[in-house]
Amino acid sequence: MSARERVIGAALDLFAENGVSGTSLQMIADRLGVTKAAVYHQFPTKEEIVLTAIAPAMDRLVALAESTAGQRGRPARVRHAIAGVVDLVVDYRRLSAVLSFDPVVIQLVRPHPAMRAVESLLDMIAGPDPDPATRIGVTMVSGGLITAGTDPHLAKMDDEALRSLLTASALRLLGVRPARADQKQ
Amino acid sequence: MSARERVIGAALDLFAENGVSGTSLQMIADRLGVTKAAVYHQFPTKEEIVLTAIAPAMDRLVALAESTAGQRGRPARVRHAIAGVVDLVVDYRRLSAVLSFDPVVIQLVRPHPAMRAVESLLDMIAGPDPDPATRIGVTMVSGGLITAGTDPHLAKMDDEALRSLLTASALRLLGVRPARADQKQ
Repeated sequence: MSARERVIGAALDLFAENGVSGTSLQMIADRLGVTKAAVYHQFPTKEEIVLTAIAPAMDRLVALAESTAGQRGRPARVRHAIAGVVDLVVDYRRLSAVLSFDPVVIQLVRPHPAMRAVESLLDMIAGPDPDPATRIGVTMVSGGLITAGTDPHLAKMDDEALRSLLTASALRLLGVRPARADQKQ
Repeated sequence: MSARERVIGAALDLFAENGVSGTSLQMIADRLGVTKAAVYHQFPTKEEIVLTAIAPAMDRLVALAESTAGQRGRPARVRHAIAGVVDLVVDYRRLSAVLSFDPVVIQLVRPHPAMRAVESLLDMIAGPDPDPATRIGVTMVSGGLITAGTDPHLAKMDDEALRSLLTASALRLLGVRPARADQKQ
């Protein structure tokens, strides 16, 4: 593990205990048994630690919006987008449980460029001129999947079980059939 | 409209524009064309305005948890709880769109006594020893309904259409059939 990864790991533990506002670079240094200057050398601010920790998930969201746009027809786009979002929820459960409701994080994520990818994904899932039932399906799916990533009840669930149950729920809400076995990637 | 209601109305408009942190008692007074002392006389702090604005919704959550506990059997409890939560979402759409993601509000709501009623409602909806599919249904429904209350796309939807679509989605996710016409209250 690199020095940067060790700082991020210790910071996430402390953010989970005290929130981002309640955590200082000094506390991170103490947790690692190093000087504050050593932490500062890697990350001058806590905000940069948060942005670095979420960067891989944000990059995957941007790539997912692009690959979804390359699919033909709404059912294929919905299946592709949901598969990708469910993978993100499953892979980043711990990170989103720690960070999702933190006021500091909300302020950092709202203007993040990846939020345009999220808007675009939601638009593609809704399709052109969605009727009210579809619109509500999209809202329920987006809120449901975000909440699934943060729910302590789901934290210990097996990855594969979580993935298949979330996918089935989301597609059912959107009225899109799961892919047949021969259509799966 | 009472003086207190006028203060709450002006405060919510300003909270929507600037967040709670970005709004001062002076700004509320200016918006109403009264002195800051007049606002202070009604509400010494912004936090008291927020707590007063959300009090009716919080009271209804507590009453809903009690009346749900009085229903017999999980399907009846789920139908009763979902009907009540959907009514709250529909009735308090504007309030939740303004307040839900505000950091100040999150800090006020988290320790609110009504949050115990929410926990108890979620436990009753899940039923005893929920299997993973039920657990995920509960998570998707809770996140989905909260998000529905805050979604600008749903802000202008007709109350009855919103109510029936949200209820149908939630019951489908939970695997509970809607009440037959003769069971409806």
